[in-house]
Amino acid sequence: MINPFFKNYGPFKISQIVRDLGLSNIENHQDNFVLDIKDLKSADKDHLTFFHSKKYKLQASKTKALYCITTKKLTEYLPNTCQPICVDNVLLTISEITSKFYPDAINDDFDNSVKKIEEILFDNNIKHGFNVLVGENVKIGKNCLIGHNTIIEKNVIIGSNCSIGSNIIIRNSIIEDNVKILDSCIIGKKGFGFFPNKQKNLRYPHIGLVYIGKNSEIGSGSIIDRGSMSNTIIGKNTFLDNKIHIAHNNKIGDNCIIAAQVGFAGSSILGDNVMIGGQAGISGHLEIGNNVQIGGGSGVIKNIPDNSKVMGYPSKNLRQFLKENK
Amino acid sequence: MINPFFKNYGPFKISQIVRDLGLSNIENHQDNFVLDIKDLKSADKDHLTFFHSKKYKLQASKTKALYCITTKKLTEYLPNTCQPICVDNVLLTISEITSKFYPDAINDDFDNSVKKIEEILFDNNIKHGFNVLVGENVKIGKNCLIGHNTIIEKNVIIGSNCSIGSNIIIRNSIIEDNVKILDSCIIGKKGFGFFPNKQKNLRYPHIGLVYIGKNSEIGSGSIIDRGSMSNTIIGKNTFLDNKIHIAHNNKIGDNCIIAAQVGFAGSSILGDNVMIGGQAGISGHLEIGNNVQIGGGSGVIKNIPDNSKVMGYPSKNLRQFLKENK
Amino acid sequence: MINPFFKNYGPFKISQIVRDLGLSNIENHQDNFVLDIKDLKSADKDHLTFFHSKKYKLQASKTKALYCITTKKLTEYLPNTCQPICVDNVLLTISEITSKFYPDAINDDFDNSVKKIEEILFDNNIKHGFNVLVGENVKIGKNCLIGHNTIIEKNVIIGSNCSIGSNIIIRNSIIEDNVKILDSCIIGKKGFGFFPNKQKNLRYPHIGLVYIGKNSEIGSGSIIDRGSMSNTIIGKNTFLDNKIHIAHNNKIGDNCIIAAQVGFAGSSILGDNVMIGGQAGISGHLEIGNNVQIGGGSGVIKNIPDNSKVMGYPSKNLRQFLKENK
Repeated sequence: MINPFFKNYGPFKISQIVRDLGLSNIENHQDNFVLDIKDLKSADKDHLTFFHSKKYKLQASKTKALYCITTKKLTEYLPNTCQPICVDNVLLTISEITSKFYPDAINDDFDNSVKKIEEILFDNNIKHGFNVLVGENVKIGKNCLIGHNTIIEKNVIIGSNCSIGSNIIIRNSIIEDNVKILDSCIIGKKGFGFFPNKQKNLRYPHIGLVYIGKNSEIGSGSIIDRGSMSNTIIGKNTFLDNKIHIAHNNKIGDNCIIAAQVGFAGSSILGDNVMIGGQAGISGHLEIGNNVQIGGGSGVIKNIPDNSKVMGYPSKNLRQFLKENK
Repeated sequence: MINPFFKNYGPFKISQIVRDLGLSNIENHQDNFVLDIKDLKSADKDHLTFFHSKKYKLQASKTKALYCITTKKLTEYLPNTCQPICVDNVLLTISEITSKFYPDAINDDFDNSVKKIEEILFDNNIKHGFNVLVGENVKIGKNCLIGHNTIIEKNVIIGSNCSIGSNIIIRNSIIEDNVKILDSCIIGKKGFGFFPNKQKNLRYPHIGLVYIGKNSEIGSGSIIDRGSMSNTIIGKNTFLDNKIHIAHNNKIGDNCIIAAQVGFAGSSILGDNVMIGGQAGISGHLEIGNNVQIGGGSGVIKNIPDNSKVMGYPSKNLRQFLKENK
Repeated sequence: MINPFFKNYGPFKISQIVRDLGLSNIENHQDNFVLDIKDLKSADKDHLTFFHSKKYKLQASKTKALYCITTKKLTEYLPNTCQPICVDNVLLTISEITSKFYPDAINDDFDNSVKKIEEILFDNNIKHGFNVLVGENVKIGKNCLIGHNTIIEKNVIIGSNCSIGSNIIIRNSIIEDNVKILDSCIIGKKGFGFFPNKQKNLRYPHIGLVYIGKNSEIGSGSIIDRGSMSNTIIGKNTFLDNKIHIAHNNKIGDNCIIAAQVGFAGSSILGDNVMIGGQAGISGHLEIGNNVQIGGGSGVIKNIPDNSKVMGYPSKNLRQFLKENK
C-alpha cells in the first residue's frame, strides 16, 4: 500500500544524505538519487534501506536496495548489488534520514487546519452531530454518520456507510466501507517509538497509517496507533471490544474477535479468525497463526502456530494450562 | 425492572413469528399472541422464551412460557405447558425475533435527536457546562451538575444531586440519587455481543439498560455497557476507580470497591461488599459471593463463595497463593 | 513543594479543632494555633500531624509537630515535644480536619468557572483549537499548543513549548517546559481514596497536585490522579504510552519508559531509568529502585532493588521467570 498521506520530500542525492550524517563520503555512485527509504523487503533499486540486526540476515541477503545503512559487522550479509553505509547506531541514523524524507510525520500536535464540518461541502448524505471538525485531505463516503465532538484530522479516507461515534479523534487512516468506530476512540496517532536518551528522548517519524478493513467494528475507548515504517492494519469483519490498545505496526487479520482491554505491544502479525479473551497482552514482533484462540488474561511472548488454543502468563497450550490449574 | 426505554413492537401472533422464521407452522395455538420475549426464568404465560444449553435444564423445566425456541435434543426438558419451536441455532433465531420486537435496540449510532441543553426547559436547578447535549426521553433530578461537552443521549433518567463530569456519554441508563460519574465515562452503549459470521458478523439487539444505585461513584474513563436481554446493574454505594470495563449483563452488588483497570467479561453476578484489586479480570457467567476480596491482577474463572479471599491467575485461595509465591 | 492551589483556611486554635472533633479538651497549649496539617516527616513545629500505623514509628519518633492525631497504643513512639490527641480512627479524623483546612479540595465536580479561551488574554503566542476552556488561576507559558475541546480547569501551571492535545481535562497540576500530553488524558483529578462506610462512603480531600517534569510525554487516554496529602510526580524526560493509570501519590523518576496499559495502585516511588512493559501492575506503597526493568504483564507486589530485572505475577527475577517458563 502506497501511503497517500505523508509528502516525500525526496529524492535526495546519496552524497548529500551521507554528508548530512557527517560521514566520510562513500566511494561510488555518489550522484545517484535515492527516491525513498524502505525496509529490507520492500526496498527497490532506487531506495535506501537499513539492516540493524542479524535476525534479518536472510532478508538482507535478498534486498534490491542500492544502499543500506548498517553496521560494519553486518556488511557481510548484504549482496554485492547493495552498498553498505556503516554507522554506529543504525536506527538513530534511519530516524534522521526518515525525518529528512518525511518531515511532516514527526509532529503529532493537534491539527489546527481543521474547519467546522458545516463549512466544508460534502455532497454525499453525511449525517453529523454538533461540533464536528474536519481537517485537510479528508474524504468521506456516502451515507456516513459522524457523532458529536468528533475530530477527523487531516489525512483520512472513510468509505461508505460507516458509523463514526462521538468524541473520536482520527488522523492518517484509511477506513473501508461499513466500519463502525465507537465513541472516544483515537485512531492514527504516532506510536510509542523513540530513541531513549537521558537528556531528551528522540522521537522518530511515523510514516505509516492505520488501515481498517470493511465491516469491522472498533469498540469504545480503543486506541490504534499508526505504523512507523509500515502500516497498522485491522482486517475485514474483525470486531474489537472496548478499551483495546493496538500499538504501531501490528497487522491483524480478518474475522478476528478481540475482547476488551487487550493490548498489543507492536509489530506483531495475527492471522485470520483469531479470538482473544479480555485483558490478554501480545508482545511485540510475534507471529500468531490463523484460527488461534488466546484465553483471557494471557501474556503471549512467543509465536503461536495455526489452530492453537493457548492460555496463561506466559501463555501455553490451553489444555495444559487448565490441567495445571485444576 | 421493566425497561422503560425500548419500545416493544409486539404483540405478534406466534403463527406469524414462525412463518417469518421460515419454519413449518407449529400445530396448536397458532393464533395466540406473544407479548414479549424473555429468558426462561422471567418469562410468563404470554411470552416466548429460549433454551439453548443443557446448563439451563432446571430453569427450562419450570418455565411458564407458552412457547420456547430450542433444539430438538433439548425439548425433553421442557414442561408440557410449553411448546417447543425447534431450530438449528437458537441464539441466532432469538436475535431475529428480538429484532422484531425491539428494532430500535440494534442501532447504536450517535443520537442525532439531541439538542443543546439551553434549548430544553429544566426547572430544577441544574448547573451545566459548555456544549452539553441532551436527547429525547431524558429526565434529570434536582441540583444535578453536568460538565462540559457531556452528551446525555436519549433514554436516560438521572436522580437528584448527581455530579456528572465532562466529556461523558450516557444513553439507556437509570442513575439514582447522589451518584457521581467522573470525566470521560461511556455508559449505556450496546455490549460486545454478536453472532460471528465469516462474511459479516451479525449484531443482535441489546434491550437492557444500565442501572446505577444511589451514592455510587464511577471513575474516570470507565465504560459500562447496557444489558442484552437483562440489565447491567451497579448496586448502591459502590465505588469504581478509573478505566474499568463492565460488559453487558453484569450485576454488581452494594458497597463494592473496585480498583482501576478491572474488567468484567459479562453476565457475572457479584454480591455485596466485594473488593477487587486493580487490573483483575472476571470471566463471564460467574457468581461471586458477598464479602469476597479479589487481589489485584487476578484472573477469576470460577465461582467464588461468600467471604473468600482469592488472588492469582487463575485465582485461588489468597493464603495458598502467597505461600506458593513467597 | 508548596501547593499553590488549595487555599488553607487555617490557622485554627488546637482547642477549637479538638472541640470540633467532639473530644474532651487536651490539657496544655490549648490556645496554640496550628497552621497546617502535614505527614510525620514534613510536619514542622506549627503543624498538626498524624500517626496511624506502627510501620511509621521511626518517623513518628522524629516528628517536629507539636500535636499528633494517633491512637492510645501508638503514643509511646512520639517524642516528648509532640502531644498526642488520641482517637479511635486516625484516618477518619484526619479526613475531617483536612476538610476543615482545605474545604475546596474535597469537591471534584466540573469547573463551572471556566471561560472560552478567546475571552482570556494570553499574550504569549498560544495556538489553540476550537472549544478550548480555561479556568481560574491558570498560567500558560510561551508557544504552547492546546488542542480542540480541551479543558484546562482551575489551578494549572503549564510551562513553555508544551503540546497539549485534544479532548483533555487538566486541573490542579504543574506541567514543566516541553511536555507533550496526548489526546484524551485526564490529569489532576482526585484519587480513589475514601473511607468505606456501608451507609455512604466518606470522601476525604485530596490536597496534593500532579507535577510533570520537563521533556516528558503522557500517552493518549492516560489518567494521572493528584495526591491526597503529598503530590503525584512524573520526573523529567519520562515517557508514558497510552492508557496508563497513575493513582494518587505515586512518584515516578526521570528517564522512565512505561508501556501502554500499565497501572499504579498508589503511593509507590519509582527511581530513575525504570522501564516497564505493557499491562504491568505496580501495587501500592512500594519502592522500585533505579534502572529497574519490569517485564510486560508483571504484577509487582514487593519492593525492587536498583538494577534488577523482574517479570511474572507476582514478579520475580527475570532469569528465574524465563527458566521456569521455558
